[in-house]
Amino acid sequence: MRKIITRLAEDLEKIREEKPLLHHITNYVVANETANLTLCVGALPVMAQDQKEVEEMVSHAGALILNIGTLSLELVEAMILAGKRANELKIPIVFDPVGVGATSLRTESARKILRELYVDIIRGNAAEVSILAGYGGKIRGVESLGVENDLSLSIKEFAFKKNCIVAATGEEDLINDGKRLAIVKNGHPMLNRVTGTGCMATTLIAAFAAVEKDKFLATIGGLVTFGLAGEKAAQQTLEKPGSFHVALYDAIFNLSLDDILKEAKVEIV
Amino acid sequence: MRKIITRLAEDLEKIREEKPLLHHITNYVVANETANLTLCVGALPVMAQDQKEVEEMVSHAGALILNIGTLSLELVEAMILAGKRANELKIPIVFDPVGVGATSLRTESARKILRELYVDIIRGNAAEVSILAGYGGKIRGVESLGVENDLSLSIKEFAFKKNCIVAATGEEDLINDGKRLAIVKNGHPMLNRVTGTGCMATTLIAAFAAVEKDKFLATIGGLVTFGLAGEKAAQQTLEKPGSFHVALYDAIFNLSLDDILKEAKVEIV
Amino acid sequence: MRKIITRLAEDLEKIREEKPLLHHITNYVVANETANLTLCVGALPVMAQDQKEVEEMVSHAGALILNIGTLSLELVEAMILAGKRANELKIPIVFDPVGVGATSLRTESARKILRELYVDIIRGNAAEVSILAGYGGKIRGVESLGVENDLSLSIKEFAFKKNCIVAATGEEDLINDGKRLAIVKNGHPMLNRVTGTGCMATTLIAAFAAVEKDKFLATIGGLVTFGLAGEKAAQQTLEKPGSFHVALYDAIFNLSLDDILKEAKVEIV
Repeated sequence: MRKIITRLAEDLEKIREEKPLLHHITNYVVANETANLTLCVGALPVMAQDQKEVEEMVSHAGALILNIGTLSLELVEAMILAGKRANELKIPIVFDPVGVGATSLRTESARKILRELYVDIIRGNAAEVSILAGYGGKIRGVESLGVENDLSLSIKEFAFKKNCIVAATGEEDLINDGKRLAIVKNGHPMLNRVTGTGCMATTLIAAFAAVEKDKFLATIGGLVTFGLAGEKAAQQTLEKPGSFHVALYDAIFNLSLDDILKEAKVEIV
Repeated sequence: MRKIITRLAEDLEKIREEKPLLHHITNYVVANETANLTLCVGALPVMAQDQKEVEEMVSHAGALILNIGTLSLELVEAMILAGKRANELKIPIVFDPVGVGATSLRTESARKILRELYVDIIRGNAAEVSILAGYGGKIRGVESLGVENDLSLSIKEFAFKKNCIVAATGEEDLINDGKRLAIVKNGHPMLNRVTGTGCMATTLIAAFAAVEKDKFLATIGGLVTFGLAGEKAAQQTLEKPGSFHVALYDAIFNLSLDDILKEAKVEIV
Repeated sequence: MRKIITRLAEDLEKIREEKPLLHHITNYVVANETANLTLCVGALPVMAQDQKEVEEMVSHAGALILNIGTLSLELVEAMILAGKRANELKIPIVFDPVGVGATSLRTESARKILRELYVDIIRGNAAEVSILAGYGGKIRGVESLGVENDLSLSIKEFAFKKNCIVAATGEEDLINDGKRLAIVKNGHPMLNRVTGTGCMATTLIAAFAAVEKDKFLATIGGLVTFGLAGEKAAQQTLEKPGSFHVALYDAIFNLSLDDILKEAKVEIV
């Protein structure tokens, strides 16, 4: 375990040194927030979604983020074009199926993306991941209202079937690569008080995926980092969601390797 | 009066308990800000604007917000699709005619929306509301430069004609249901220093409309809450618009029922 | 020099008095941020990008900002429609060629804009400006990785050829009108930690261009103001990019004429 956490800390250092470009095809609600988060963790953001440029843009990227928070058929087409190019170039893809299950457009688009692309990592809340995996779940808009199945089991089967990493984030984050289950216990309830924190977690996972070959570790790294930043941000801003949001950027920027070594709460079972 | 204000406080409590979903079809300038405000008042935000999903999404919503801040014909079509479904399901609609009068696209789109949908509540600045009501007004971009008619009279006639609630917000907020005029005196000049505070007020009205049957009261509730939050946010951040913007979220989140009971400034005449 | 700086301070006063409307056709990543910055400097923002309304909207504007950060062919068409109307009405245009060189869509769109419109001021980072001028440069996404040519020379030739003002911003900002070179040394490294600070600088230049006939001075004015605000914001928020971002709005809002008179660092050579 110590070895893994040391490697996560080294990955964070690598992000800051290599400054990978994170190409986001994402929703307009959190575009600014995820771009700023990208800068704060030490990477470079670019948002580009036109079908005429996404293949060219992604070819310079360290990772591609596909987020269907405010989707359209055109946007999904752009995601598939960018994704195919990313697959050819072995650039990792992180997929965030925002609100899947809430409308059939979202469900069908998400399935289409998974059918046409190899996606390295899928991150969603419990309902999104469970619905996408085919086990059902309750969602109100983009908010998980819970699942009835055993989530750790369904993400395992889903990850195994898709041969990728599946992460269901929430009070505890569950990550599975089809064999191993990791549980990340870092985080803070204040993260639920700010919109787009799921999208932000996805961005951090992508930053780690850009520098870490083992995508299971990359996913853990992104979620530990984000959870830790949430804990630190909450120290001074409890019950103040606006101030907490601001402090979250400060915390990501200032997260030290030592913070990870000492405060990461990860179990692998 | 005491009875009304007590009911507004109870409505705020109800929002926090029931967490209604607020479906926004809105502009990309303030999407993040209104989503965060929705969370801060205790409701759940969802932004979805594709014609292929809006009818399905709105059917789960407690209220629908239509905001033409960055409109296109496609977006207006989506608004009408969502709005018709909302009308069928008796889900309240709050309409924010941003910049109406500034271009004929905005004026015609706003009129089309009012022709094709039953809108429960209209909220705009003085010029927007007066122009939409057919009495003219001066607007620069999306900023009211004032009206020459008697605003309290024109919103009364407009509300009566449309059988809905009309609110013209500004230094004092005027609200009319075709018979009664309410004046909300909560608020702070710093609210003019942040973009999208009109859109935010509309979001809060929608939160109240989702839990309060009497839409006249819901409109008053949203505007009292927003005005009070502005007053509290300004206490520590006078002449600091960036800090004020952050404090506004904190203030909405922390607004107590007692704050409303003691500090609401409403007159009904 | 003293005379020039006095005039810049007077221009800032004029912005606050006249409140010019700044019509942005810009990317969705920084729309909220540039709208808020516009309010903080004392001007009025409007974001409108539909081809059916941009000509009408721009005719009320004091300046037009064209920013290709998240472009599409439709958006570029809207820019050209708005720009032609602006040219007819002698409304100044400020062009921000975000990410030019990163994809051919961006490069071709930027060239098309320069071919079809008279643009008063071009502002980009070193790579963007150098690539647009035809001298090449390295860009990763929207981030300049540097140029190999003598930047002060290439912007001079480019400005001369296009008969406009060209500004390449970075650690020092270089501004050329085809004859004179101005160097603005205000600024702070923390500005690199927030997304969209280039776009924000463009917005401030447009605010000055709306009230100042000499566009060379207007460009200097915008960049001095932005640099100074960055310096002041950094005083309390060093190594805290989230807090710095908030403080930047406060600093712009509170910048005094005296601050400009005493702290502007401009050389004209």
